[in-house]
Amino acid sequence: MTQIQGGNPASNQAGDQNTDQGSAAQQSMALHARHRGKIQTGLKVPLDTRDDLSIAYTPGVAAPCEAIAADVSRSFDLTCRGNTVAIVTDGSAVLGLGNIGPEAAMPVMEGKAALFKAFADVDAWPICLATQETDEIIAAVRAIAPGFGGSNLEDIAAPRCFEIEDSLQDLGIPVFHDDQHGTAIVLLAGLLNAAKVVGRPIEEMRVVISGAGAAGTSIARLLRCVHQDPSVCVPVRDVIVCDSKGAIHARRTDLNHEKTGLLAYTNRESRVGILKDVLVGADVFVGVSKGGLLDADDVRTMAADPIILAMANPVPEIMPGEAVAAGAAVVGTGRSAFPNQVNNVLAFPGIFRGALDARAPRITPAMKLAAAHALADAVGNPSPERILPDPLDKSVAPIVAQAVRDAAEG
Amino acid sequence: MTQIQGGNPASNQAGDQNTDQGSAAQQSMALHARHRGKIQTGLKVPLDTRDDLSIAYTPGVAAPCEAIAADVSRSFDLTCRGNTVAIVTDGSAVLGLGNIGPEAAMPVMEGKAALFKAFADVDAWPICLATQETDEIIAAVRAIAPGFGGSNLEDIAAPRCFEIEDSLQDLGIPVFHDDQHGTAIVLLAGLLNAAKVVGRPIEEMRVVISGAGAAGTSIARLLRCVHQDPSVCVPVRDVIVCDSKGAIHARRTDLNHEKTGLLAYTNRESRVGILKDVLVGADVFVGVSKGGLLDADDVRTMAADPIILAMANPVPEIMPGEAVAAGAAVVGTGRSAFPNQVNNVLAFPGIFRGALDARAPRITPAMKLAAAHALADAVGNPSPERILPDPLDKSVAPIVAQAVRDAAEG
Repeated sequence: MTQIQGGNPASNQAGDQNTDQGSAAQQSMALHARHRGKIQTGLKVPLDTRDDLSIAYTPGVAAPCEAIAADVSRSFDLTCRGNTVAIVTDGSAVLGLGNIGPEAAMPVMEGKAALFKAFADVDAWPICLATQETDEIIAAVRAIAPGFGGSNLEDIAAPRCFEIEDSLQDLGIPVFHDDQHGTAIVLLAGLLNAAKVVGRPIEEMRVVISGAGAAGTSIARLLRCVHQDPSVCVPVRDVIVCDSKGAIHARRTDLNHEKTGLLAYTNRESRVGILKDVLVGADVFVGVSKGGLLDADDVRTMAADPIILAMANPVPEIMPGEAVAAGAAVVGTGRSAFPNQVNNVLAFPGIFRGALDARAPRITPAMKLAAAHALADAVGNPSPERILPDPLDKSVAPIVAQAVRDAAEG
Repeated sequence: MTQIQGGNPASNQAGDQNTDQGSAAQQSMALHARHRGKIQTGLKVPLDTRDDLSIAYTPGVAAPCEAIAADVSRSFDLTCRGNTVAIVTDGSAVLGLGNIGPEAAMPVMEGKAALFKAFADVDAWPICLATQETDEIIAAVRAIAPGFGGSNLEDIAAPRCFEIEDSLQDLGIPVFHDDQHGTAIVLLAGLLNAAKVVGRPIEEMRVVISGAGAAGTSIARLLRCVHQDPSVCVPVRDVIVCDSKGAIHARRTDLNHEKTGLLAYTNRESRVGILKDVLVGADVFVGVSKGGLLDADDVRTMAADPIILAMANPVPEIMPGEAVAAGAAVVGTGRSAFPNQVNNVLAFPGIFRGALDARAPRITPAMKLAAAHALADAVGNPSPERILPDPLDKSVAPIVAQAVRDAAEG
């Protein structure tokens, strides 16, 4: 169906865009085996003559070394540091595969590095850690920081991902857990446009989130404007987060520290019950859980013209056709084969591009909000089939980057 | 004098090969500022169409992830790991600049990464550590190992460099401190050819080494065949290592653990005195210390037709002209402007290429010896002005790589 060119990257002709999973798996194995991965290093300077070596290496290289020793901030503009991001994982929560370990996480981290380069000219390198201890992960990210301009935490299980990210905000370079915030930012962008499509203001909406892990928690925070400036952030009316046991509410006795934290800004009416119970009358369903949880009857219990963002991968919580047939006004998923793909690639390349360009010490709530709004605005005329830009649209990352940079510097 | 092209690397025309240091420093600052460093990432696969993303990233990428989860060794051929080396430093002993810290070490580490790519198509990435504690450096190298096929320790001060390297030999991937062994291997290659030039067998030679740090210690070990198979390694008759206080001998009471270790295989005749004392009658001077330590009178006290390998950088222990005028038969330095440059770039790219190709779990003494002999043999007809290949000769690394690979597999 498709041809992968060896050597120089050359585009596949997408003869059939509904590449099924079996085929993608086979082609992916062949691709990875043929190229032994997806990324490599490249030179920005010549290294052919004696003069080349004298300038790029010894003895000339002593000059930039001394300049940085005198002023460490110059490491950002005299070395690759200022354009470089570490993609750090412990391999504990990889895709839908779970805790497969750091070596097995490499193909995902390499893919992410490739996307950083292709979409935002960010040089990213995978750092797959041989530990799943919170303290050791924090120590490793701190240890390698002098060579990197930022750190993208990836596929680290909840709840340790929260503590790791929080602990590293003083590092002086952005540390950003993409599974939390990348997903939340793209989701908010999609919801902003879906609200326009259904003609209902976001502040009147009740949102039910299925999934209380990294993504679910971050989405709840962003939709409720936690840590945001209230003058620029409009919260949705209410968010109810469900884990596998149902709605998270104050009378539950089985909540960990992170889920207890959700009570401060979610479930204002203290609803109880399983997912299907609290979905009754809701305006929006957000799925970051697992495939096939919902059916058409569930959608019919929701408010009129419900919005369904069912992002479980590879199988959504409900298939788009079924949701639309049951009355959904707008449906998005995590799959490229359907309209409205909620894909992190719309966010993370531009967010880090903007943060690196601003040399921001961290990614603030205002920068995340700016990214979501820029992404929403990048869709000229939202429609039920188009609440988000195409993930392949390479004009998007620069727009997001500029908004993030402005928010960082503003 | 030279033109650096922006964008794609293009070779400089070496109009004047005697680029002086001041000029190299200015040009180096300009080069580093213009390109913001020297290395970047690149894609080995296309990422333009929906199918491209499905195959290189989700959902297809789950297939190689699962294959590696089932058999971790597949991470070497399904990801970039098998071609990737971490260049790890703590910034404590950078060039002749000393303890300038990890950020200021970046230009050197990046330069090394560029050389790895240019000479041996090895993808290397700088890892500059925010710690100079031995235990924390060891922990960091272990922590990041799942994403790398090898680890090149660089510019880490003695004596901690010895403990760090020794402790990591069980890691399952090669961990190689280049300042020790890279220098020693190139030095041995040069000495093997210098011995041919002067027509005196290496086993009759007495060698005086000025410098008891990482390089001096490793050179002493390699010349005395420590840890080598005696059936294939011919030791020089004696080695005397000098530190700043003079010869290292058994009656000194100020020796640390590493220097005491030298007594087992150096200074067989228990000579005492300062460097100039023990140099009397020596066949070979090896300098890994600092510029200007020797003068013509010192050379005249050595045996007939002495060999001088004065590698202090940027100023050698004695200038070649002065050494030759005083009777030296062969002179090598660390400088590209003189004949016989002892340059690590002759060794490390080929050594790691060979080790990666063999998927060797460590770089053994036999692999180091094989590299030195291959390097010596790469010079067809040794002469006083040519005991080593030209560091710019890109045909050398594949020769070294093959010898190292054979030694690893043999």
